[in-house]
Amino acid sequence: MYKVIYPTIITGLLVLFTSVMLSLFSKSWDPKSKHCYVTGGSSGLGLAVAKLLVSKGAHVSIVSRDARRLENAMKELEAVRTSPHQILRYYSYDLVTAAGSREALDAVCEPHQGKNPDAIFMLAGSCHPRFFIEETEETMRTQMDQTYWVQAWTALEASKRMVRDKSKGKIVFHSAYIGYITLIGYAAYGPGRMALRALADTLRQEFLLYDIDVHIAFPGTMYTPGYDIENATKPKITLKIEETDPGVTGDQYAKGLLRGVQNGDFHISPDLLGNIFRASMRGVAPSGNFIVDSLWNFIGWIGLPIWRMSVDSTVKGHKKEHEEYLTSKGFCMFCLNAGEAGLHTDQI
Amino acid sequence: MYKVIYPTIITGLLVLFTSVMLSLFSKSWDPKSKHCYVTGGSSGLGLAVAKLLVSKGAHVSIVSRDARRLENAMKELEAVRTSPHQILRYYSYDLVTAAGSREALDAVCEPHQGKNPDAIFMLAGSCHPRFFIEETEETMRTQMDQTYWVQAWTALEASKRMVRDKSKGKIVFHSAYIGYITLIGYAAYGPGRMALRALADTLRQEFLLYDIDVHIAFPGTMYTPGYDIENATKPKITLKIEETDPGVTGDQYAKGLLRGVQNGDFHISPDLLGNIFRASMRGVAPSGNFIVDSLWNFIGWIGLPIWRMSVDSTVKGHKKEHEEYLTSKGFCMFCLNAGEAGLHTDQI
Repeated sequence: MYKVIYPTIITGLLVLFTSVMLSLFSKSWDPKSKHCYVTGGSSGLGLAVAKLLVSKGAHVSIVSRDARRLENAMKELEAVRTSPHQILRYYSYDLVTAAGSREALDAVCEPHQGKNPDAIFMLAGSCHPRFFIEETEETMRTQMDQTYWVQAWTALEASKRMVRDKSKGKIVFHSAYIGYITLIGYAAYGPGRMALRALADTLRQEFLLYDIDVHIAFPGTMYTPGYDIENATKPKITLKIEETDPGVTGDQYAKGLLRGVQNGDFHISPDLLGNIFRASMRGVAPSGNFIVDSLWNFIGWIGLPIWRMSVDSTVKGHKKEHEEYLTSKGFCMFCLNAGEAGLHTDQI
Repeated sequence: MYKVIYPTIITGLLVLFTSVMLSLFSKSWDPKSKHCYVTGGSSGLGLAVAKLLVSKGAHVSIVSRDARRLENAMKELEAVRTSPHQILRYYSYDLVTAAGSREALDAVCEPHQGKNPDAIFMLAGSCHPRFFIEETEETMRTQMDQTYWVQAWTALEASKRMVRDKSKGKIVFHSAYIGYITLIGYAAYGPGRMALRALADTLRQEFLLYDIDVHIAFPGTMYTPGYDIENATKPKITLKIEETDPGVTGDQYAKGLLRGVQNGDFHISPDLLGNIFRASMRGVAPSGNFIVDSLWNFIGWIGLPIWRMSVDSTVKGHKKEHEEYLTSKGFCMFCLNAGEAGLHTDQI
């Protein structure tokens, strides 16, 4: 690979410049009259995206587990419909298994003559941070279900159908800042969020074979019902580190997400910090404007190590308080004999 | 975070320069007389690392599933021991569950008066690439077991013990190039490899609370028994894209890995391509020499988009051959009616 770099630097710059120019004249995707399937669509970001899509004239199907929340969400969707012909539906399924995801897709396609959705927004999931040594086999697996599998199964089932039927479409994954830059407290959550990024990166390339578009969004703090659940188990030190993140509402983020999808962006990070993280974790993901992204890369190159050193120093300063916390939780911090005390994955 | 960047650019450069200078005078970790636990130690990279550790005077315990392979591996370890006092042991356990990983740790610590290992090298796992739409629920879950869980459980069980006993030590994860830069064919494998990176990144920071060191290695193609297994299911297009990767032997990579651990490197990528990938996916991971890493970042910034465009073009050029492949496998590529044919996760 590296053998070709030097003679092609100028060519590369020209190609990138040309693609930026071309993108200025490309037509953006319009959700009007499209069938959009939104998982996790009964609350938070899912509901915000579903409402936005309905307000733009799309047919929208939402799926989540809680039937009562779905009913309330449907009222909000009905309130913003722009035409009596829009098909708005809600379904209750658990998407953390392949079977549940398949059944949900069957149900969602039914009012559309069995046709696959034109776009799938995978926004279901939840976050439960805690210290790694407090995790158990169950909490680790549940967090992987709620980050990775809840999207991976829908992507798998949907893409099999799309390839079988030769239908084009969009698959939109949903990661988080933590999918770029993890923090203390996210040892169970971060891996699933980064795993989604790997899946999206792979599928973006693989689905060039089928003309299926792949997107993935990386939001930061969002003030949604899920945020309160997340903070219930979040270690104090993590809350402290995150207190400078200003955060946005689900409605605010939904607009940025949909704009990214409409523009054809692959990694969607519609804010300053997200862009710095994206450029510092770009890998081979197609990026946006070369000049602007060079700036994000430079800022991240200088700024992120400084930020990391500051966070590391905060963590080290938390040692004493953490020892007290562990002692209060029953961890024996002063046993020299391994047999004396302690706890295993199945004992917490 | 970004508010502090501009006034601290010079300070940051000075801090980085100082840390590079300090690292030149720091003492490297010596495995002599340490107890090193190597998972996957009966073949491939695991065996190569175990042999290297034995040759440097460490007590070594290896764990894998295959009892016969373990016996043969033990003969190789015995052949390179440097002292009759070295404790060399092998154990057969399946590490893809928390319980198996706990039992293995119990067994491994037993000849050492129950003391935790000084260093844990997690080198078990396997790779089974295929096209995403050919994956099933079972193959997806198995690949997550063989990439992520096989290391996550050992890390979880070991860190609980280390915190309980206040024992220091090293935990070494093992990802791959694909944990930085995924490719067509790795939709099940890449997510687990990148998930490990997220886990390692989180734990590096979290374990500052306990003075436990975390490392993670990112090897490319390695000519080991696992490589032949991997190539048995690898799509032709993936083989074609990878044919320019020169590859190394397990013994060659083991040396680079151990050197990285001894030097205290966090992300270990001891080759040119690995370094370019690392710098392009650095996030907030502590890096090496600032000047050298700036060069890798620059090369990646220019070179990787060009490489990606070339790979994308190769994938697009594979469309016709892929359609023929899918037809031969029973995928109906020309059915317009969704009910006519097709296959679900549980039907392949």
